[in-house]
Amino acid sequence: MFSKILIANRGEIAVRIIRACREMGIQTVAVYSEADKDALHVQMADEAICIGPASPKDSYLNVQNIISATVLSGAQAIHPGFGFLSENSKFASICKQCNITFIGPTPECIENMGNKSNARDIMEKSGVPVVPGSKGAISNESELLETARKIGYPVMIKASAGGGGRGIRIVYKEEEIVKNYENAKTEAKSAFGDDTIYMEKFIEKPKHVEIQILGDNFGNIVYLGERDCSMQRRNQKVMEEAPSPIMTEELRKSMGETAVMAAKVVNYNNAGTIEFLLDAKGSYYFMEMNTRIQVEHAITEMVTGIDLVKEQIKIAAGEKLGFSQEDIKIQGHSIECRINAEDVSKNFMPSPGKITDLYVPGGFNVRVDSAVYSGYVIPPYYDSMIAKLIVYGVDRQEAIDRMRRALGEFIIEGVSTNIDFQFDLLNSDEFINGNYDTKYVEKFIKDSTYKN
Amino acid sequence: MFSKILIANRGEIAVRIIRACREMGIQTVAVYSEADKDALHVQMADEAICIGPASPKDSYLNVQNIISATVLSGAQAIHPGFGFLSENSKFASICKQCNITFIGPTPECIENMGNKSNARDIMEKSGVPVVPGSKGAISNESELLETARKIGYPVMIKASAGGGGRGIRIVYKEEEIVKNYENAKTEAKSAFGDDTIYMEKFIEKPKHVEIQILGDNFGNIVYLGERDCSMQRRNQKVMEEAPSPIMTEELRKSMGETAVMAAKVVNYNNAGTIEFLLDAKGSYYFMEMNTRIQVEHAITEMVTGIDLVKEQIKIAAGEKLGFSQEDIKIQGHSIECRINAEDVSKNFMPSPGKITDLYVPGGFNVRVDSAVYSGYVIPPYYDSMIAKLIVYGVDRQEAIDRMRRALGEFIIEGVSTNIDFQFDLLNSDEFINGNYDTKYVEKFIKDSTYKN
Repeated sequence: MFSKILIANRGEIAVRIIRACREMGIQTVAVYSEADKDALHVQMADEAICIGPASPKDSYLNVQNIISATVLSGAQAIHPGFGFLSENSKFASICKQCNITFIGPTPECIENMGNKSNARDIMEKSGVPVVPGSKGAISNESELLETARKIGYPVMIKASAGGGGRGIRIVYKEEEIVKNYENAKTEAKSAFGDDTIYMEKFIEKPKHVEIQILGDNFGNIVYLGERDCSMQRRNQKVMEEAPSPIMTEELRKSMGETAVMAAKVVNYNNAGTIEFLLDAKGSYYFMEMNTRIQVEHAITEMVTGIDLVKEQIKIAAGEKLGFSQEDIKIQGHSIECRINAEDVSKNFMPSPGKITDLYVPGGFNVRVDSAVYSGYVIPPYYDSMIAKLIVYGVDRQEAIDRMRRALGEFIIEGVSTNIDFQFDLLNSDEFINGNYDTKYVEKFIKDSTYKN
Repeated sequence: MFSKILIANRGEIAVRIIRACREMGIQTVAVYSEADKDALHVQMADEAICIGPASPKDSYLNVQNIISATVLSGAQAIHPGFGFLSENSKFASICKQCNITFIGPTPECIENMGNKSNARDIMEKSGVPVVPGSKGAISNESELLETARKIGYPVMIKASAGGGGRGIRIVYKEEEIVKNYENAKTEAKSAFGDDTIYMEKFIEKPKHVEIQILGDNFGNIVYLGERDCSMQRRNQKVMEEAPSPIMTEELRKSMGETAVMAAKVVNYNNAGTIEFLLDAKGSYYFMEMNTRIQVEHAITEMVTGIDLVKEQIKIAAGEKLGFSQEDIKIQGHSIECRINAEDVSKNFMPSPGKITDLYVPGGFNVRVDSAVYSGYVIPPYYDSMIAKLIVYGVDRQEAIDRMRRALGEFIIEGVSTNIDFQFDLLNSDEFINGNYDTKYVEKFIKDSTYKN
């Protein structure tokens, strides 16, 4: 096992990793930008090294300084967290060349999955379902009909040059497709001067459901159930839950085994996530793979009891997985709310500044992973997420009741936060009934007083 | 179900109960003394009523004011927490007369178990093991020998008028008993002017191990495993863990079934605890029953997943237990450290005052049940316990590692606390090996720099 690990990150994930290391008896080295000298991760780590000015490119993305800090401190491994250098295959390669263990998959895995269109091709070839579509443009009616039949209705006809929703037609029945195709062409021609049209399967009520996997260096790969991350604003996750309220045992097994198959194709090692689009009928399609620990990993920890960050470290140190697929049981329900320092009323504009008062909720099955303390000044240079509020309940209803209670207790003064927004979102009918899709949060905002 | 509950308590247990009520959709009424007007439970409850001056007898023990507050606020039930009126059978009776549900067992249960010698007699008659002893004084040698044979060696010969350890002899073998008896008599005569001698079984390396039970109003009673509360200073628990490090499946079943039998004898309803002395050979003896929720209930919640305060409320509302003995599984390991505002270096003298800075530990499987916030002034009138730090781990080692990490993170400025003391105690060999008995903490203090 490593005796010292450098954490090439900041914020709550750096604190999260330091905690895991401390519990494992591993010394920690924090790195920080000049703007982060008072940050919690700097105070908590055993050592802390400044790696440059505030701008991420000069500090948290500064490969040379991070490698130097690792070598100087004598750390044997780097945990990259998420964001920053976590999915940078070149960085992972450099670590390898410097005899530093990168706590994550091999550079080849990151490379293969990092290019999204490449990843999609690999998956499609390996039999992992991807969103079906026409290979390029559709040139005539018979090709139109044939492609639609192959994909299956409903289909989406899209202008290649399209944007702003124009040139798009959703077609549910064969008898309506020719007319829609003609109209879309006409509209595209007049709007963009280009009537090139292609086709994709239309995913009805799409949910973003992702599968957490863990793979060791010996080819053992397991899945740890799913997370429903359909609550998104501008493709940013807002609130996540595990299990998905629409999941069945059969579907979990199917998606889980597909995820493991996908991971095996690229000889995946360490923690990773396969993101799928799941439609209302239970069909699912590969979107992409995240080759790192994710923000929302904690809800999987709550329902499986498995400490994912410790597992990452153990895998990187060359240990075999200590459990097999049959040992992994999903128990109860967990929800995470991302607490952001942002002004919801000003189009969710970041709200950096000093936290003048802080009360963090506590009690049974309430978990807070945070990087803040009373008096802390949130710098303006980084992500606005300052804490993750995670609850666990014996069932979804208890988890919702507990999250409602915990959000009600949370006090952060001095900066604007999205706590009240999360409270309202949690209490909205669509969240309560569990049937929300990836478009729901935007709809909720539009229909609410949060509209701008 | 109740729509409104009054909480006749203060501090972290009042907050704990408010949290359970809120998650159940029940309105809460806090009561408070003049000294507690800024207390957290007052701020958290839906309503708050002042019930008198700081002195407990004028406020938290003021039955008339508490009943008036209940009637005025329209609460249908009172949760008494622990301490104060929680084991006062007259108070429970008055509640009944006023048509207020007392969230606890019947007044008869409290009465029966409240008188400790009466409780011991009831238990002995019902076949629950109690510490064996002579019935009163031993008057001659043949009685001495006969009693010792019946009880089994080692035995303790004690002067009835004794104190300060004088007139006490521990005898391991029959051939040594007569000489010791004579010496004890002589010593007692000269020290106290009274040579009356009685005998009790000597419990070697006694552990305080208690069994949590839950009983509904329909005669269903289950046990939820044990808590090892042997870490005590002056009969006050300091640190608790579940399960006990020396527990076996067989012993748990035996102690659990004995506890259920004891509870059935008195038709026990609601949450309760049977405290046992457990010796090094696995023999256990009834000490007393606590007819209320206990400080250390949280560790049982962590290893069973059952919310004991919610169960108390459901039982009091007339619900049947939703699970049977077979459903209760003990998983993992939990430890609690009681965080007290006290000056360890001054003989653990309470240290009230203003909390000028506070950082509460967080992360995976760390739970804090607390009544404090940054800026809170701890009043001098009540218990010095201000928070409970509770951790859970997949096994005892992880729980210890996590507690070490969490204690290291905990920052309370402005008052003295026992955080460092708990850290050292946790890391002491005797705690780590799990073999500590009820005398260990005093020994640890004596052998350490905490000695006064």
